[in-house]
Amino acid sequence: MRVYDIIEAKKRRRELTDAEIGFFVKKVADGSATEGQIAAFCMAVLLNGMTKREAVSLTLAMADSGKKTPRPPADGIFADKHSTGGVSDSTTLVLVPVLASLGVKCAKYSGRGLGHTGGTLDKLESFRGLTTALSPQEFAGQAVKIGAVIAGQTEETVPADKRMYAVRDLTATVDSIPLIASSVMSKKLASFSDVILLDVKYGDGAFMRTASEAEKLASLMVGIGSAAGRKTCAAVTRMDSPLGDAIGCNAEVREAVGVLQGKISNDLSALSFYHCEKILEQAEGIAEEEAKRRVKEAVASGRALDKLAEMVGAQGGDPRDVYEAEKTLPLAKNERRIEAKKDGYLKISALALGRACLEMGGGREKAGAQIDHEAAILLGKRAGEFVRRGETLATLYYNDKEGDAYALAESAFSLSDKRIRLRPLVHSFTAGR
Amino acid sequence: MRVYDIIEAKKRRRELTDAEIGFFVKKVADGSATEGQIAAFCMAVLLNGMTKREAVSLTLAMADSGKKTPRPPADGIFADKHSTGGVSDSTTLVLVPVLASLGVKCAKYSGRGLGHTGGTLDKLESFRGLTTALSPQEFAGQAVKIGAVIAGQTEETVPADKRMYAVRDLTATVDSIPLIASSVMSKKLASFSDVILLDVKYGDGAFMRTASEAEKLASLMVGIGSAAGRKTCAAVTRMDSPLGDAIGCNAEVREAVGVLQGKISNDLSALSFYHCEKILEQAEGIAEEEAKRRVKEAVASGRALDKLAEMVGAQGGDPRDVYEAEKTLPLAKNERRIEAKKDGYLKISALALGRACLEMGGGREKAGAQIDHEAAILLGKRAGEFVRRGETLATLYYNDKEGDAYALAESAFSLSDKRIRLRPLVHSFTAGR
Repeated sequence: MRVYDIIEAKKRRRELTDAEIGFFVKKVADGSATEGQIAAFCMAVLLNGMTKREAVSLTLAMADSGKKTPRPPADGIFADKHSTGGVSDSTTLVLVPVLASLGVKCAKYSGRGLGHTGGTLDKLESFRGLTTALSPQEFAGQAVKIGAVIAGQTEETVPADKRMYAVRDLTATVDSIPLIASSVMSKKLASFSDVILLDVKYGDGAFMRTASEAEKLASLMVGIGSAAGRKTCAAVTRMDSPLGDAIGCNAEVREAVGVLQGKISNDLSALSFYHCEKILEQAEGIAEEEAKRRVKEAVASGRALDKLAEMVGAQGGDPRDVYEAEKTLPLAKNERRIEAKKDGYLKISALALGRACLEMGGGREKAGAQIDHEAAILLGKRAGEFVRRGETLATLYYNDKEGDAYALAESAFSLSDKRIRLRPLVHSFTAGR
Repeated sequence: MRVYDIIEAKKRRRELTDAEIGFFVKKVADGSATEGQIAAFCMAVLLNGMTKREAVSLTLAMADSGKKTPRPPADGIFADKHSTGGVSDSTTLVLVPVLASLGVKCAKYSGRGLGHTGGTLDKLESFRGLTTALSPQEFAGQAVKIGAVIAGQTEETVPADKRMYAVRDLTATVDSIPLIASSVMSKKLASFSDVILLDVKYGDGAFMRTASEAEKLASLMVGIGSAAGRKTCAAVTRMDSPLGDAIGCNAEVREAVGVLQGKISNDLSALSFYHCEKILEQAEGIAEEEAKRRVKEAVASGRALDKLAEMVGAQGGDPRDVYEAEKTLPLAKNERRIEAKKDGYLKISALALGRACLEMGGGREKAGAQIDHEAAILLGKRAGEFVRRGETLATLYYNDKEGDAYALAESAFSLSDKRIRLRPLVHSFTAGR
């Protein structure tokens, strides 16, 4: 068997066998498939597609390509959640403590932001002293002990996906549904969660532009997870305007804390709680109403916020910082306001605001680059609202880098005379068998 | 402009502009496009195709990517010929001296064999002392002075094609008609011939398996050559059984000498003379009958053979070796005969015989590998002939390496009770405007 022949077969639209896919992934992981061979394979998959069986096979082979984190010998259910990425999306920071406080253990491997804004790891590192670099033993130990852990996957996890993704990123082969699905799911399957919830975003601020594309991806990922014996479900959700009212690491953590304190009610809180309920239903087999009640109680009692503090403490931060987030997570020193130039119904582009945040140093364009945790955009108004001339639409906070941020952020807002009908936050939900 | 965006456009089936193609080729040539980007681009072209305009643009950009050999300031017509490759095809060694002796200057850049048997350069180097490594000045000088020169293109010629081909070879992206056409034609256009004849082979022993595929390639190459202002024509010819009766470097040179001496009459002589006539018609504007007469005369008079000797002398060989080819170009020391196991009509697979030759060391699998010039297969019978049991079908000549050569060669022959109808040697001929 040769890597060449496997590319040739995919090019000719022949369905690959498990053995062929396994061989290819092995050669990617051990470095013997060349960059060109990986790129040619990915372009052939992008243009010719993959059957569900092939995608399952690719995912399993990638998950097996490195060190897996074994399931700790503990009772109860371990849950994980993955979002395909949006702007002002700190649902993970809400969901993990809420579920953990309700007895569903959350063991979540997250990523860093590459693009407009920071990723979950970046946001978490806004807490002084907190580390997200945990060994598999520390990760599993914390998951069992306090039921809440968020960390980065190590270099040895899913090396085939790491190498393949680096090539795809340079060769315009990212946007293939089977390649996205296998990349996401291989990382999930290399860890040990029993229940996996996938938040597949669609819209201008998301990778998938349309709901129907997002549904295809969701359905394939649910199929892969189910084939691997995990309880997998997916919500297809709207991402055109920002989910919460804050963009930027410190600002988003502050907002998540606000949601856990029951002080904030917006799309971020709605979606975070929705995900919590769905995972509870899957994990505990309870009805929707009961799940809603428990989530409400976790927040109202303050136990969810306490769980976040416990997790921050366990990962090297100071638990007290959680209760004083406004003080310990400052915003950047310079402030600039964007105001409405006329009356009208507000439209907000998540993408343009994400770019503005990047301009201020609040995101990274290259892996390894520093992020300014203090750079922030706070929204004064929500998409769909009727706004009067002169009202504050948003405030930008930046330190030394402003760049084109103001102009970009300004371009994110438009006002229309006609009422705007927002599509529902959750477009659809699917659960595997 | 970014290489990434050009791959993205081709992936989305958008027609590329000349500026985009020029940019891409520049980045390939200067090494800044990565191997993966080249591979992804080639796979996207292979699967999504290219318009004729794009293929012309790619060819011109590649031809311009390195040092061109300028046309020497000389009267007369310079001709070139290219074959897509077959087994026992030494037409170049016949054609160049015939045409040169008739006043049409042949300035031919050739390649080395990569695959079953040696290429034209390898065959030519069978002559003791002969070099095919000429500077562009030496190449042009010899073309003007004696009207016949065959050499290899230097590293600096068409670097974009060199890099692209090396990637295609590893990534299953060789068999794309626009990529083949632009690779072949960029090398032709980097040289200075006024008339270009393309021999596009089809059949089991050729790269293109069907006549209709070969015609597509022929038509695109003629289109590209014409767009670049060269008189370009193409013959689509059959390549299932070997063209001549000899396979292997020394053996093929001996056979070419035999054809020039008028001693051999087979498909090799027929096709060589056909090509000569077509080029004469294009170069001199004469009728077919007149062209035939001149070619016949060039051979009968011995002037064509003398021209080969002159060329061998000019490139460092001994002209006398041409007249004593049987002595100066020996075959390998061990001999093994393949005989017919029953009576029947003969079928011969060129591909299997090519592989047998490679097994004996008469070809190379990797660039730079040594070739055994003495390894040879001589056919005793032609495809289509009625053969009696016990008659010699072929004789193998090998030195130290036999490998699976005998079994492979044996498998090349099959005998059928039914008469075999050979397709015509020349399937079709197209000349550009």
